[in-house]
Amino acid sequence: MTERSAGASRSHAQAPDGADGLGGLGEFELIDRLVGDGQGAGGDVLVGPGDDGAVVRLDGPEVVVSTDALVEGVHFRCDWSAATDIGRKAIAVNVSDIEAMGARPVGVVVALSVPAHTELRWLDDFATGVRAECAAAGVALVGGDTTSAPQVVVTVTAFGDLAGRAAVLRSGARPGDQVAVRGLLGWSAAGLQTLRRGFASPRAAVAAHRVPQVPYGEGAIAARAGATAMIDVSDGLLADLDHVARASAVTFDLRSSAFAVADPVRAVAAATGTDPLRLVLAGGEDYALAATFPPGDLPNGWQAVGSVTVPGPDGPTVLVDSATWDGSTGFDHFGSH
Amino acid sequence: MTERSAGASRSHAQAPDGADGLGGLGEFELIDRLVGDGQGAGGDVLVGPGDDGAVVRLDGPEVVVSTDALVEGVHFRCDWSAATDIGRKAIAVNVSDIEAMGARPVGVVVALSVPAHTELRWLDDFATGVRAECAAAGVALVGGDTTSAPQVVVTVTAFGDLAGRAAVLRSGARPGDQVAVRGLLGWSAAGLQTLRRGFASPRAAVAAHRVPQVPYGEGAIAARAGATAMIDVSDGLLADLDHVARASAVTFDLRSSAFAVADPVRAVAAATGTDPLRLVLAGGEDYALAATFPPGDLPNGWQAVGSVTVPGPDGPTVLVDSATWDGSTGFDHFGSH
Repeated sequence: MTERSAGASRSHAQAPDGADGLGGLGEFELIDRLVGDGQGAGGDVLVGPGDDGAVVRLDGPEVVVSTDALVEGVHFRCDWSAATDIGRKAIAVNVSDIEAMGARPVGVVVALSVPAHTELRWLDDFATGVRAECAAAGVALVGGDTTSAPQVVVTVTAFGDLAGRAAVLRSGARPGDQVAVRGLLGWSAAGLQTLRRGFASPRAAVAAHRVPQVPYGEGAIAARAGATAMIDVSDGLLADLDHVARASAVTFDLRSSAFAVADPVRAVAAATGTDPLRLVLAGGEDYALAATFPPGDLPNGWQAVGSVTVPGPDGPTVLVDSATWDGSTGFDHFGSH
Repeated sequence: MTERSAGASRSHAQAPDGADGLGGLGEFELIDRLVGDGQGAGGDVLVGPGDDGAVVRLDGPEVVVSTDALVEGVHFRCDWSAATDIGRKAIAVNVSDIEAMGARPVGVVVALSVPAHTELRWLDDFATGVRAECAAAGVALVGGDTTSAPQVVVTVTAFGDLAGRAAVLRSGARPGDQVAVRGLLGWSAAGLQTLRRGFASPRAAVAAHRVPQVPYGEGAIAARAGATAMIDVSDGLLADLDHVARASAVTFDLRSSAFAVADPVRAVAAATGTDPLRLVLAGGEDYALAATFPPGDLPNGWQAVGSVTVPGPDGPTVLVDSATWDGSTGFDHFGSH
């Protein structure tokens, strides 16, 4: 009793005339293909896909929730990213938000809109990617929704629990804390530059652009180690730390020498005449974690990269080697910079 | 560092050249416009919008989660539904799923994709509708995401708690139970027929099509009253009860005389030469609740409409006056009927 899709323009994700598209499948079959029957979801899932909602038992009564949409042509291009990678990325970027709260990621629900003529193969590959990343993240895929749309839109909502801990907010950084990062920085931006130039190598950078390497489990580790503030690096380290600086009313002073620039990032920077530090500091989409800790030992694998200070007269900001960074700081979907 | 939108075709939701579109707003300002600062969200919300995730305290460690996407041109038309109504509907249809689990709806997150040239007025009206329906449903808007896309896509994820009760599943109906409904049936379908004919009256039916009248709070009431199975009526009563029949391995026998056909439904049926019972039984999008209860008293306002029996040789099904219904049973986004 609702309006049907007005039809979609042809794209790479669509089947040629006569090929096996989605039109012959009902909505429920599509959901089954996407989310499966919830088997392997783990003991926390009391009710999996197939009812009006899923029921998951958390470790405590506090639930952490985050949602993000990925849109074809905005967040990914189907000619640069395979369906498997798009499915993996959609899960990764959302679970990353739960990590950044210091929580344990528990489950996800996935709403997928696709053109009516999308090949079934594309959908199955997408579902394979979703399930693979859920397994990597240790979360259950507990529900979903499928509908038609002129282009692919994937909206994932992830949730997690805190096991009685307080969430690690953006507002908790204090002067005297140290700044530390965990995960890759600059790799996704290097991969994007590589693809834009029409190359496929360095493969490690391209792979990092296609599927972020989220340091799963490190959010809760940081929380247990006393992290005072945390964020995941989606827009770029400087841009994201700026959110933390403002929320905490502090200034960050990063040490450029503290960043180990990885070989693939260095190679792309050299080939494109880019400052490698710019890729590290301003390159988005790596989904590393950045956190502040009181002075003392950091958890294994976390790298100290700067310190937290009282803001100067111009207010909270992020400095690099005690000076204002003069490059681009990050990405904004609607901005014009 | 991501791909920008390739640009969107002009639509009714877009601003004329030179008008105030979204292009001048950053993603964060857009999110603020959409979700606000979480004030008025209630005491259960420990962390509202503005961090990587929201934190909500539930009444017990079990969380109920459901997600649904609404796509422009598929689920709504901007020339038939005002932005306010689209916002309200997006919340209503998702919270309805939480009701149908017998849970208390607690919160929602909203992911909104809109064309870059959408008028700010449209966004503000959408946000007004979202907040109004959240207030009606008694849920907190705890987070969101905004991004550009060629057309409007709204994905809402709703969650709730069970206060120690078991969820009411589709699989729990037993022979001997009675079938009951709570809420409007046929009104949305009548409203859609009205709009298709180019009329605006009966207004009550048109309003019910634009914004479903979810019987908020009745899901938990039914659960406490011992409901054995429950579903919300999105595709049409017969279609949705068929899901329950299959999940429970039972047959439903509905009594056509038990349905009180409301005046607006009767009026539209008469004007279009439609059997009013068809609107009631097969009209979707009303988001009434249908549940099964053991014999005995029903909660206030629930209407007994049939009984649960052992399936015949052809297996679980839904009968009307002990016979197979020969009209259309409901709507499927990808189906061809």
